[in-house]
Amino acid sequence: MTNDSMTKALNVCLSPLLIPLYDVESHIVVIIDIFRATSSICYGIENSAEAIIPVAEINECIAYRDTQTHYLLAAERDGKVVEGFDFGNSPFSYTTEKVGGKTIVLTTTNGTQALHLSRKAKKIVIGSFLNLTALCNWLKVQQEDILLVCAGWKNNFNLEDTLFAGAVVHQLKDFDFRLDDAAIAANDLYEAGKTDINQYLKKTSHAERLKKLGIEKDIEFCLQVDLTTAIPILDGDRLVKLKN
Amino acid sequence: MTNDSMTKALNVCLSPLLIPLYDVESHIVVIIDIFRATSSICYGIENSAEAIIPVAEINECIAYRDTQTHYLLAAERDGKVVEGFDFGNSPFSYTTEKVGGKTIVLTTTNGTQALHLSRKAKKIVIGSFLNLTALCNWLKVQQEDILLVCAGWKNNFNLEDTLFAGAVVHQLKDFDFRLDDAAIAANDLYEAGKTDINQYLKKTSHAERLKKLGIEKDIEFCLQVDLTTAIPILDGDRLVKLKN
Repeated sequence: MTNDSMTKALNVCLSPLLIPLYDVESHIVVIIDIFRATSSICYGIENSAEAIIPVAEINECIAYRDTQTHYLLAAERDGKVVEGFDFGNSPFSYTTEKVGGKTIVLTTTNGTQALHLSRKAKKIVIGSFLNLTALCNWLKVQQEDILLVCAGWKNNFNLEDTLFAGAVVHQLKDFDFRLDDAAIAANDLYEAGKTDINQYLKKTSHAERLKKLGIEKDIEFCLQVDLTTAIPILDGDRLVKLKN
Repeated sequence: MTNDSMTKALNVCLSPLLIPLYDVESHIVVIIDIFRATSSICYGIENSAEAIIPVAEINECIAYRDTQTHYLLAAERDGKVVEGFDFGNSPFSYTTEKVGGKTIVLTTTNGTQALHLSRKAKKIVIGSFLNLTALCNWLKVQQEDILLVCAGWKNNFNLEDTLFAGAVVHQLKDFDFRLDDAAIAANDLYEAGKTDINQYLKKTSHAERLKKLGIEKDIEFCLQVDLTTAIPILDGDRLVKLKN
């Protein structure tokens, strides 16, 4: 809050490589990895997973298996489940039947790494279209600057994460936030795509790549707005349900 | 040209920090620093400056003065002329009267550094609204992948550089280029802002900062489309006029 102590900042970080440009210590950070890590985390926490432990490397996942044999292990690289793991990033794996009461150790290509780079933030929460309005309602009443971190794809800018950041900006912008240029851009891109986000995203190269992986149903699932109300929040090294 | 050898890539790099994500060696790079370095460079080369030598540090500028006393020195930090230098980044300093036949050594906060980070590119050219169509007409007939590098503000994303990248994408997109997500986004932002770019940019924090520096006239000047036709190109360590 450098310029105006009466307003909070609403900033958007378009790639994990840009996180060092922000003073994350003074922000609440929202991690965004729409296809599919943060969508699945929101769905899993909504469906009573006890906790989801995000880790950066597959080896860390395996280390958990050796000591905590009741944990479920989820790992994905390049959009595919790693061999020998319980599941990957598909939200359909995070149903109540599968994850209720369970702890899941999760590593993904992008989301987990963005999360680790943000670990000094005041709070870290998880966003996706699934919990959009619940998340925004909570963010509105916080007294801290907010940083929306787009996990991107291998550190590259991507449209789906940016569009979601724009959806958040769209809900918050009339509540006396100072927007940085990336927040303005994200909001305007959301305005351009909001009438049919799935259709809008079809023109991206990423959609083409995901289509090749045969996960169109996952994509459709991840673009559902307000299916859930739980907000996953980082508590130590575990993502748990935020208690309002 | 990994996916389709028949089409060229048209990529947009939204911050100098993201340059390492691209294989610059295989691209023609366009450096973009609309307010105001690349606008002034285009204007200066149009106005018969013999060459503009971009350097990263003020000390390098000073070193030139000691050996090449007839060179003009231009340096700017945080949007202001550095004391003791001939001029800074204002395009009004780059008139024929002032720069015709002269060599200028230039250091700026953002543009020069983006240029140095791209130095392994096949070719490096300079873009601004001033030479937009001339630049696009040249890019259309090149047989290489293209990377539009937004210099940004202290490595942060900014809207004015991205909007110009979008203006380039807008002119090229029907010529069989593969766009990355950032190119799609830049184009859509340009679509949102193109009817009045100056008005569109007024909502940015950067505009507010530049306004405080009293350079509104520079801004208006830099947003003029197709005032010039010269394309500055890097030849060794000097930006000179591209000979078609």
